[in-house]
Formats: sequence, structure tokens, C-alpha cells
Amino acid sequence: MKIHNFSAGPCILPQEVFDRMAQAVLNFNNSGLSLMEISHRRPDAEEVMHNTIQLTKELLNVPDTHEVIFTQGGASLQFVMVPFNMMKLNGGKAAYLDTGVWATKAIEEGKRLGLVDVVASSADKKYSYIPKNYNIPADADYFHCTSNNTVAGTQMKSFPNSPIPIVCDMSSDIMSKPVDISKFAVIYGGAQKNMGPAGNAVTIIKKEVLGKTGRDIPTYLNYQVHIDKESAFNTWSVMAIYGAMCNLEWLKSIGGIPEISKRNKAKSELMYSEIDRNGMFRGPVAVEDRSDMNATFVLNDESLKDEFDKMWKEAGIVNLKGHRIVGGYRASMYNALPIESVQVLVDVMKAFEQKFG
Amino acid sequence: MKIHNFSAGPCILPQEVFDRMAQAVLNFNNSGLSLMEISHRRPDAEEVMHNTIQLTKELLNVPDTHEVIFTQGGASLQFVMVPFNMMKLNGGKAAYLDTGVWATKAIEEGKRLGLVDVVASSADKKYSYIPKNYNIPADADYFHCTSNNTVAGTQMKSFPNSPIPIVCDMSSDIMSKPVDISKFAVIYGGAQKNMGPAGNAVTIIKKEVLGKTGRDIPTYLNYQVHIDKESAFNTWSVMAIYGAMCNLEWLKSIGGIPEISKRNKAKSELMYSEIDRNGMFRGPVAVEDRSDMNATFVLNDESLKDEFDKMWKEAGIVNLKGHRIVGGYRASMYNALPIESVQVLVDVMKAFEQKFG
Repeated sequence: MKIHNFSAGPCILPQEVFDRMAQAVLNFNNSGLSLMEISHRRPDAEEVMHNTIQLTKELLNVPDTHEVIFTQGGASLQFVMVPFNMMKLNGGKAAYLDTGVWATKAIEEGKRLGLVDVVASSADKKYSYIPKNYNIPADADYFHCTSNNTVAGTQMKSFPNSPIPIVCDMSSDIMSKPVDISKFAVIYGGAQKNMGPAGNAVTIIKKEVLGKTGRDIPTYLNYQVHIDKESAFNTWSVMAIYGAMCNLEWLKSIGGIPEISKRNKAKSELMYSEIDRNGMFRGPVAVEDRSDMNATFVLNDESLKDEFDKMWKEAGIVNLKGHRIVGGYRASMYNALPIESVQVLVDVMKAFEQKFG
Repeated sequence: MKIHNFSAGPCILPQEVFDRMAQAVLNFNNSGLSLMEISHRRPDAEEVMHNTIQLTKELLNVPDTHEVIFTQGGASLQFVMVPFNMMKLNGGKAAYLDTGVWATKAIEEGKRLGLVDVVASSADKKYSYIPKNYNIPADADYFHCTSNNTVAGTQMKSFPNSPIPIVCDMSSDIMSKPVDISKFAVIYGGAQKNMGPAGNAVTIIKKEVLGKTGRDIPTYLNYQVHIDKESAFNTWSVMAIYGAMCNLEWLKSIGGIPEISKRNKAKSELMYSEIDRNGMFRGPVAVEDRSDMNATFVLNDESLKDEFDKMWKEAGIVNLKGHRIVGGYRASMYNALPIESVQVLVDVMKAFEQKFG
């Protein structure tokens, strides 16, 4: 039976990415050697990193003012690296927008290095909306926000006009739609969703914002080091980067961001129309802030949970359970999820309504 | 033609590790899903991390006083994490032994957080020996050493009696021979040699040494966090850990550390006997400090370089070039390298002597 994989991340990737990764593990570029057993300094391995960086720049229209790096440690290490690179040693202060659990974790790391001004929070309503009309202090070193909340299923549809550099954690919606990179000082993300498999973080940095904190930054935490070394300061996570390269080549081959953006919009429209139409379910999130990546919904009658769970499992759907913090259901519809999978889920929801409505 | 891969790292791993990794990329545990597209919190994925930690403990006889964690960022991030976790905030001081380029990098990161006392260095002779009979100050927070220098080809054959906790970077010889773990406060290593593919670092920590610095440690850099979360504080590098698990299962299946230690000794004896016997070559490293992992040697007559290079390449040998810092040749003989490959190299050296000697 065909499996419909709604995993929130690590998540579905195109089959050709898996095929190419498996091939590279066995015989990389017909070298007779595994990609796992060669030096990351070999020219054909260096090309893998180089291509991954170039494809990221090309697909996202990264301007010359910015540089792209790949590091390890996921977004969690970026939470640490951002204040080290962006917050002044003396009198350092940053503004953070609190839109959920990941924003909270970023805030925690900012607080270790300086003053953090949480400009707005949607914690009052379980992060079910994105705060608007807050004030960003002009005297802070940067403003930090999280573009997509995978847990609650909210997404920033626009970014505020900020008097200070904007830093954005785009872990779960980078490469899903067009973004004007020039408006950001730093964009980062754990790369295990739309970018590739687990084991990488991507960071896009406006070069001129660096070197201004007065801090003695530990080498691995220093963005400038990774820029200067073209992300090969030390041994990189070879398989994860190779997977990202294959995934970005796939994205380019289907038409890049303009095409995937259309596909993602069609999937989320199909999904949310059904949530709104179907009387058995409701979406807990403010309509204007609904995430195109992670659609959350709950049963109006919780006593029917086992019945509904049985039906979607029988249809070949996996990983639909909501995050343990919020419960309910979460349909994650990352780039590689075909609309056919969303249709299967919608059909199950309709059949469920017919049977129990 | 059979390839003989003497790569210094990432390096040769057993073929069955590559086969299992390729299979898991396509269909993990017959789930119909790739290991790349499932959550690291799924029980069968969590088992991969759990097994990797347990196998590390079992193979190295890690006592209950110690815990094993896997993080990302390689040894380079460990250079940063060690002083954060081990060096006091007020009056912090550490002793470091300087045995080469990697020790130097570790020293650099220690200096950012406190006073570093370099107790001895072999920089005077291009790191061609391991310093002995140095004094470790009893008032420092820890003593740091690097067990194996992959660049020069030296290896610590014993460790000093230290009045303070010993921290050791074992990146390139961990799992190659027996080690008395109980003697160390922290052992760490980039795990892309004898442990598995690139993308991981392993750290073995004596639990009682933690929590004594008075530092507010950034979350990702905090050993205690990774211990408490069983190395799943955030999304781990799934493919790299899976490769490590398969590799450690292979090591266990052949007889563990006692057996691999015998094999490694046989390989290095074969290699060094030929370097010493053959008048065309010499080993630049102090005999008693020669590394069993990386045997370095140079031609006595550099003008014959092209001839020798042609001969070993024709024999199917790859990645024999010395590190750019020292030149010459380097035969890296990690766990998975069969003695047959060393024999092929020795035969080439003999043939070279016959032809040009």
C-alpha cells in the first residue's frame, strides 16, 4: 500500500533523493568508493558542498550582500550562535518575538548573553496566532522572529518593518515560498525539512552585520569562520549535505521556488477548505495565521478519536498525530508531499463525516 | 581493480556498514519509509541512538560513573564545549599538552575562557614526538591531551599520572585498542574514523566532574543537557548515527576491542617493519611514539617521487599522500582497513626498492 507521510520533520523527501543517497553510500560518482570513506577535502566531495551552497543562493535569489553557510547542531546551535555573533558584549540587547516553543528556546539562549526584550507573545492563547502591531525598540542589536511554528501550526505571512536588523528562524518554511532575502540580516534553519535530511543547519548572513559585537567568539560559533572556510572549517556532515544537494537539484528541476510555492498553496487550500467545511473538525489556529506547512486540526467530538485514527491509518497515512504539547492532528505538507496525499486525507475526513456525522 | 583506501578520515568502513546504510535510506527496518523521512522521536529511530550509546559503553567497558553522548559539530565543537563545561568561571585555568595541529586548536578555544598553561610541546621538532616528563599543575581545572596526531603520525602510548581530571581528544584512535575509561574525566572525538561516518562527535563524561564551573552554559554546549536527554536534545544527525551503530555492531561481531587491537597491531608492525627495512624510505617520527593508526614516511630521494606515486596508484592504492603540512606519505590504517591492503603497499615498496634501489 502507498504510504502518505505527514511527518513534521525529519520529513518526506523526493524518492530520487533517497535513490541518489543510497547510490552514493555504495559508490560515489563511480569512484568505486563510498561517499562515507573519502576525505571531505577531495575535489569531488568539495563540489558537493559547493553545489549545495550555490543551489541555495540560486533558488532563494540570495543577493551578493549575503553569504550562505552550512553548519552542524541544527537550529538549536543557531540559537546560541545568533547572540554570539549579533549581540554586543557591552550593553548587548535584543528584541525577540515569542510565537511558540522554538521562539522560547531562542529567547533563552539570547538571555545568557545580554538583555532580551520580548516585544510580543501569543502565549496567552497557546500560541494559536501571530502577534501584530508590536513595537521594535530601535536601540536593540537585532529583532528575532520565528517564521513558522510547527507545533501550533502558525506562520508569519509578512514581516514587520524593523528599525534594526532582522534575524529569522525559518527552519520549517525555508524553500517553501519566495522570500526577499535582502530584508534580513540573518536567516537560519535546521535543514531537515524542505532543505534535506537531518544533520545540517543553513544560515544566510548579510556580511556587513558581522564583526560588530566586540566579542571573542569561539571558533565553531563564529559565522565569519564558516564564511571564510566555505563551510569546510572542519569535517562537515557529508551524507546530510549530499542529501540536501540532491534535494535542491530536484527543486530546481521542477521549477524552483515559484513552482513549489504554487504546489504548497494548492495543498494547504485543499486541506484548510476541508477543515472549515467538515463539521466533525475545527482548526484551532487564527485563520489569517494558518501555516501552509503544518495544518493543525482537532475533532469536535473527542470520543470518536479511535474511529478516526483507524480510518486514516487504514488509508496508508502515517505521522498525523499532533505535537504532544497541543494534541489533536497535524498534517505537515512539506515540499515533497504530493497533493495526492492531502487528497487521501481529505477523502478520509469526508468518509468519516458520512459515517459518524 | 580492488581499491586500497588509506584515507586519513573520513575513512574506510566495513562494506556491510555501507550496505546497511544504503538499505536504510531506501527502506528502514521494512517500514516502507526511508530512515531520512521519519521522526527521530519514533521508537524505532530512538532505538538507533540508544543502541549506538549502549554499544559504545559495552565495547569500551565504560563504567557506571561515566556517561556517553553523541553531539554534532565534530571535535571542533568539543574544543569549545570542554572549557565551557570544565573550566571555572572565576580564576579558571587548564593545562594542555601540545602535540600538534589539533592540540593547538583545542588550546586556542581554552584560552578564550581562562588561563591556559601549555605544560609541554613538541613544536620544536615539527611534532615528530610526544613530550614526556612534564609537570601537570595541581591547581588547574583539567589536563587536556590529544591521544593521536593524524598529521605527524604520533600516538600517546600511555597517559601521565595527573593530579587533576584528564580530558583527552581521542578522535583518531578511539575504538582501536583498550583504554581504561575510568582514568579519564572526559574523552571525546570526532566520530568519523573508527566510530562511523562523518557528522557525529562522541563524548564520554565522568558524571561527577560536571556542574562545578559556575558558568551559565549555552544549552547546546552543556554536556549535562545531552546526558539528560540521552543525546536527543534536538534532532540528531540520523544517517551518521545509524552508520555508527552499524559499524559498532560490526566491531562487536568480529570480537570487539581485543580482536581489533590485535589486527591493528599486526598492520602497524607490518608497515613499520618495511619502513625500517627498506632503504628507500624513512619514518620521520620518534620510534617509540609511532602511531598505529597513521604511519608517516618519506622518500630518501625525493627525485623518485613520481616513480613511486605511479607504482602505488597502479596497485589500486588511494589517499596515501601525507598531510599538506608535513608532506611525504601517510598510510592510515583504521579499524576497517584489511591487512591485505597494507601488504599491497609493502609489496609496492619492495618492488620500488628492487627497481630503483
